Amino acid sequence: MTDHIPHIVIIGGGFGGLYAAKQLKRVKARVTLVDKRNFHLFQPLLYQVATGGLSPGDIASPIRAVLKKYPHVSVLKDEVRGIEPDEKRLILKGGELSYDYLIVATGVRHHYFGNSHWGSHAPGLKTIEDALEMRRRILNAFEEAEKLDDPDLRAELKRFVIVGAGPTGVELAGALAELAHATMHRNFRNIDPSRVDIVLVEGTDRVLPPYPPDLSAKAQNALEKLGVKIMTKTFVTDIQDRNVRLKRADGSEETLRAATVLWAAGVKANRFGEALAAKTGAEADRSGRIAVQPDLSLPGYDHILVVGDLAQIIQPNGKQVPGVAPAAMQMGRYAASRVRDMIAGRPSKPFTYFDKGSLAVIGRNAAVADLNVLKLSGLPAWLIWAFIHIHFLIEFGNKMIVSTQWAWNYLTRKRGARLITGKFTPEEDGG
Amino acid sequence: MTDHIPHIVIIGGGFGGLYAAKQLKRVKARVTLVDKRNFHLFQPLLYQVATGGLSPGDIASPIRAVLKKYPHVSVLKDEVRGIEPDEKRLILKGGELSYDYLIVATGVRHHYFGNSHWGSHAPGLKTIEDALEMRRRILNAFEEAEKLDDPDLRAELKRFVIVGAGPTGVELAGALAELAHATMHRNFRNIDPSRVDIVLVEGTDRVLPPYPPDLSAKAQNALEKLGVKIMTKTFVTDIQDRNVRLKRADGSEETLRAATVLWAAGVKANRFGEALAAKTGAEADRSGRIAVQPDLSLPGYDHILVVGDLAQIIQPNGKQVPGVAPAAMQMGRYAASRVRDMIAGRPSKPFTYFDKGSLAVIGRNAAVADLNVLKLSGLPAWLIWAFIHIHFLIEFGNKMIVSTQWAWNYLTRKRGARLITGKFTPEEDGG
Repeated sequence: MTDHIPHIVIIGGGFGGLYAAKQLKRVKARVTLVDKRNFHLFQPLLYQVATGGLSPGDIASPIRAVLKKYPHVSVLKDEVRGIEPDEKRLILKGGELSYDYLIVATGVRHHYFGNSHWGSHAPGLKTIEDALEMRRRILNAFEEAEKLDDPDLRAELKRFVIVGAGPTGVELAGALAELAHATMHRNFRNIDPSRVDIVLVEGTDRVLPPYPPDLSAKAQNALEKLGVKIMTKTFVTDIQDRNVRLKRADGSEETLRAATVLWAAGVKANRFGEALAAKTGAEADRSGRIAVQPDLSLPGYDHILVVGDLAQIIQPNGKQVPGVAPAAMQMGRYAASRVRDMIAGRPSKPFTYFDKGSLAVIGRNAAVADLNVLKLSGLPAWLIWAFIHIHFLIEFGNKMIVSTQWAWNYLTRKRGARLITGKFTPEEDGG
Repeated sequence: MTDHIPHIVIIGGGFGGLYAAKQLKRVKARVTLVDKRNFHLFQPLLYQVATGGLSPGDIASPIRAVLKKYPHVSVLKDEVRGIEPDEKRLILKGGELSYDYLIVATGVRHHYFGNSHWGSHAPGLKTIEDALEMRRRILNAFEEAEKLDDPDLRAELKRFVIVGAGPTGVELAGALAELAHATMHRNFRNIDPSRVDIVLVEGTDRVLPPYPPDLSAKAQNALEKLGVKIMTKTFVTDIQDRNVRLKRADGSEETLRAATVLWAAGVKANRFGEALAAKTGAEADRSGRIAVQPDLSLPGYDHILVVGDLAQIIQPNGKQVPGVAPAAMQMGRYAASRVRDMIAGRPSKPFTYFDKGSLAVIGRNAAVADLNVLKLSGLPAWLIWAFIHIHFLIEFGNKMIVSTQWAWNYLTRKRGARLITGKFTPEEDGG
């Protein structure tokens, strides 16, 4: 009689997947983590790359380096394209992969609510490439405005519309205002970059809708001090080249002329999430998030666990577990212990989410924090924000450097990574 | 009678162009610096980006930020496409620009000696995009090798051929060896990344041909200690997919199978350099470098000065001024003083090149330096190399951060910027 060593496959090297992999350290099993990218991305700081404050390398760590001291984990750089759940088999771009236990942590991408043609006019912010595209557009708008004399065209170039005032939209608006007001001071000769027009559009009645109303008010106040115009109860009905069509709750309509439109609104399950729901018959909500059992497994497939942004979990208080990094980490850790229990034939307690609170940063010294027991704003919230983010960056690959970079940016208000890259070919390098 | 304020136009924001712009501080003139990129690139460190040691933002500074405190200089982000030298007029992608004095600092690009079809198989290293493409190929080769069982295919993926053993080729080979031996240690489960096969191919009889022979020997020794195979007196006669055809001076031929081929050999004038030579009738050598007068002007066009890699200057000792950053800086500074003299109606002394020596780094603690009065190798040369590079990085945009990053990389042997980016579209983000 031979012992079958179980094979645990984790899809996705985000917060959920990596925490699961690390937690499986002393389990008698082979572990394979599959990701089509070779790096873990610290998504909460993508907006810093989009506004030139940090370089991609500052917020990404090679997955192999993160898992170097976990010899039980093999990393496979491949793309998962499908699943045969009854045969416990994944279909990869480069072959197939069998599993005994599967942890799905494939996350979400941005989404235009069925208007995918808006994508070319209003880039979202989920990947490094997204962030570099945003950075390119933002910086090019200033460059073009500097060249033009026509006041209308110049106004279009100096208007930035951000759609969605959740944490991403709020942080993006704050960083963009700081870029224009402080960093670019005296960089131009014909335009005054501090006189930009940043418009933040939100469908609900306040910014940061998941936060308590008083913190929303403080965030709004901080943004307005930075010159950001906030339009709540306003929906985007169409986006075309340099045109954003808006409709307010009172029925009035307006068109904004703006060269740069940034998308921070909807998200949707990644492709594999859709395939998984289809093949297993699991229920998914409008965004493709999959309803999981109390132990994060799928109905009828207790060997498949879903963690992170892709999982839809209703807490006892009726609220959904939010799509944030701490929730993904907790689910990843739980999934690992659940698999360990299954291998040992032990029962497990259901997953419970411990809400550590919420944080959003609006600019230098300005942030809002809801730590449940304590609500903070201003510098204290900013310091907590910086501390927590640096802590996790260090955990994922020793990015001690980022703290130095931040200290430097903070002192000098410089943003060193203001490069327009990616659209040049060697042939074009002629002057 | 109105005073005509002269307009000085500088093309190119590299070392030559920026030094010229800075040096024109107290001249009664308008100065415009045109570049199609918005950043100055510290080219001598591009190989660090190609091997994941530094991020693009670490070695590039926004030109506007560098020139922030030089209000006499306007920066124009545009591409220069042609010139009408008799009308003192430039043709830009976005319009036209008249000048009274022109300083051309457009540099060189890499070049395949008439075999431009080699380009897709063997990327060069002149732009950020080039470096990211090299990084992508190098890291992907390890990822693919990890997946394969076929020993021949694996050997192909673990072989890296670098064409050209000048400073770029030597530094690239050293950094690649270090990446494989130290940084990737324990990152893989199926392959041993330290057992890669790095081959450095050079047509002349030694590495670093412009350096004194004893330093070439030391560099070769240091590279061989890192496991780099050096093939001197060997020419590349063809490059195809995974195939490099070689011919030795003795007539023998060989084909190397290698998935990754990196080009560090020929350079050629950028497009505008070619247009300038054609329109002014200036003499250009085989690489398109333009022969300039002792005051860096073109024959018959004393208002057009050429500086940096594009200028071909023969020194009294019969040697060419080399295409290195210190030479470009000296020419840029000279060109500014020459224009100042012309405006004042004063004669100028001819340009003289002061050779500060040569430096190349081979790896951790290993470098060679020829400081004319002193030849160094090993750790002392490495420290001088690090000091000089950090000094200039700081001058161009306060990149204090890079020194911290280096100290960190040095201590940990980590290379944090090992990301494979740039070939993903939002649609592909599915797991």
